[in-house]
Amino acid sequence: MALSKPIGVFDSGIGGLTIASAIKRKLPQASIIYFGDTAHLPYGDKSATLIKGYIRNISNFLFEQDCGHLVVACNSASSVLTNDLLPAGYQSVLNVIDPVVNRVVMETGIQTVGVIGTRRTINSHVYRNRIKKQSESLLVKELATPLLAPMIEDGFVRNSISRSVIHEYLKRLGPVDALILGCTHYPLIRTEIQEYIGNDVLLLDAPDLIADQLVKENDISPNQSGTDHFYVSDFTESFEQTAQSFFGASIHLEQRSIHPK
Amino acid sequence: MALSKPIGVFDSGIGGLTIASAIKRKLPQASIIYFGDTAHLPYGDKSATLIKGYIRNISNFLFEQDCGHLVVACNSASSVLTNDLLPAGYQSVLNVIDPVVNRVVMETGIQTVGVIGTRRTINSHVYRNRIKKQSESLLVKELATPLLAPMIEDGFVRNSISRSVIHEYLKRLGPVDALILGCTHYPLIRTEIQEYIGNDVLLLDAPDLIADQLVKENDISPNQSGTDHFYVSDFTESFEQTAQSFFGASIHLEQRSIHPK
Repeated sequence: MALSKPIGVFDSGIGGLTIASAIKRKLPQASIIYFGDTAHLPYGDKSATLIKGYIRNISNFLFEQDCGHLVVACNSASSVLTNDLLPAGYQSVLNVIDPVVNRVVMETGIQTVGVIGTRRTINSHVYRNRIKKQSESLLVKELATPLLAPMIEDGFVRNSISRSVIHEYLKRLGPVDALILGCTHYPLIRTEIQEYIGNDVLLLDAPDLIADQLVKENDISPNQSGTDHFYVSDFTESFEQTAQSFFGASIHLEQRSIHPK
Repeated sequence: MALSKPIGVFDSGIGGLTIASAIKRKLPQASIIYFGDTAHLPYGDKSATLIKGYIRNISNFLFEQDCGHLVVACNSASSVLTNDLLPAGYQSVLNVIDPVVNRVVMETGIQTVGVIGTRRTINSHVYRNRIKKQSESLLVKELATPLLAPMIEDGFVRNSISRSVIHEYLKRLGPVDALILGCTHYPLIRTEIQEYIGNDVLLLDAPDLIADQLVKENDISPNQSGTDHFYVSDFTESFEQTAQSFFGASIHLEQRSIHPK
C-alpha cells in the first residue's frame, strides 16, 4: 500500500506527540496531521461512552483532512476502539496496544509481563486480555500509575521526585521480565524506569513499534510534502511549552474545535 | 434571608466535596445538591471560554433542581465567573475566591501572601488582582502547583512523596506570612503544608470561610430535610472511592449528563 496520504495521529492531549515524533524520524517524507483533544483530556479518568464519542468525532475530522491512515495514539482511546466508530475509507488504522502486545508475545524467556498506565487503561484490562488471547501462559501484572502523566507534564523528570514516584509504583508492581509502558507520556521517563528496574527487564512502548509497522505495511511514496499540522481542541500556553519536549522539536499548535455532527 | 431552599455546590470534580462537607458540618439541616463535572475535569488546564459554557449549563441545572443558593466550589470556575453566566433568581451566589481574599486583607501583620493553585487559577492572577484591589501594599507571590491535585486524588498524602512534592513547590515559593490554598483539593494536605511552612504562617482555604458566610448571610430555616444529592457528569468507581475522603463520609454518586440548551 502506498503511503500517499497524510497520517492522522490523535491523542487526548500532547502525549501522542512521542508517537508522531517516532513516525517522523522513520518517515521524514510523510505528512502528519496531529489532533490533541486537549479540551477533553485526560481520557484516563473518563467513561468508555464519552471516549467513544470523541473517537467518532476526531476520526471523522482527520478523514475530512484527507488522512489515509489513522494512528490512535492514546491508550484509553485504543482500549475502547472498534471499527464501527470510524468512517469507512481509512487505508490503515493502528492503535497503540496491538503492536506492543504482538511484540511481547513473540519474545522468548518472558514469563511475567508488567503493564503500567492510567486508571482507565488498567481497569479495562485491555493489555492483559490481548496478551492472554495470544499466549495464555504469560503472567500479566497490571498497575494503575495515574500520577506519572501529570508529573511528566509538570516537568518533574530526572529529579528526586520523579525517582521517588517511579520507585513507589514499581515497588508495588513487583518483579517482572518485561514492562509495557501503557501511556504515551511514559517514553519521557523511560530511562529512569530502566535504571530502577534494571537492564534485564525488557521495556516496551509504542512509538518505535508503531513507526516500524507503518514502514512495514506501506510503500513510502515520495508524493507527500512532509508538511505537518498540529491541532488541539483547546489551546493554552502550557500545552505549547510542553509540546516541544514531547515532539523533540519546536512546533506550532493550532486551536480547532470539533463538534458532533 | 431564610435558607429555605437547597444549596447548590458545584466543582469540576469531587474536590468541592471539601466545601460541601464544611457546609454540612455548620448547617446540618441544610440540603445540598452537589454537581461534580467529572466529564470535563480538570478545569485547571482548560480555556476560559470552555469553562464559562460549563458554568452556564450547570448553574441552570442546579436552579432547575430548586437550589436557591449557588456555591461555585472550583477555583478555575470562580476565576471566570460573571453574573451574566447564571440564571436570574439565585438568592445568593458564593465563589471560593472572595471569602479568602476578604479574610486575608483584614489580617494585621501580613506583608507577603502566597497563593498556590492550578495553572489556570494562577495564570488568571485572580487572587492577586482581587487582593490588590483591596490592599495595594500587600505583596502577592503566586505559584502554579499542578501536581498537587492528581497527587491527592491518587492517595499520595501523608507520605514521603507528598512531603517531597510539597517541599519542592513551597521552596520555589519562598517565605510568606500567609498562604492561600487556592484549590479545593488542598485541604486534604493542609496539615503537611502547615508542618513544612511553620505555624507562624497563616493558612487560608475556602471550606470553613464559605460555610461561615452562608451561616452569616442566612437565617437557618428548619424547613429543609437535610437530604443531599451528589451528581457527577461522568461516573467511575475511582471517583466514588475518592469521594469519601473528600466528604469525610460515605456518599452515593449519581451519574447525570447535562447538555447545553
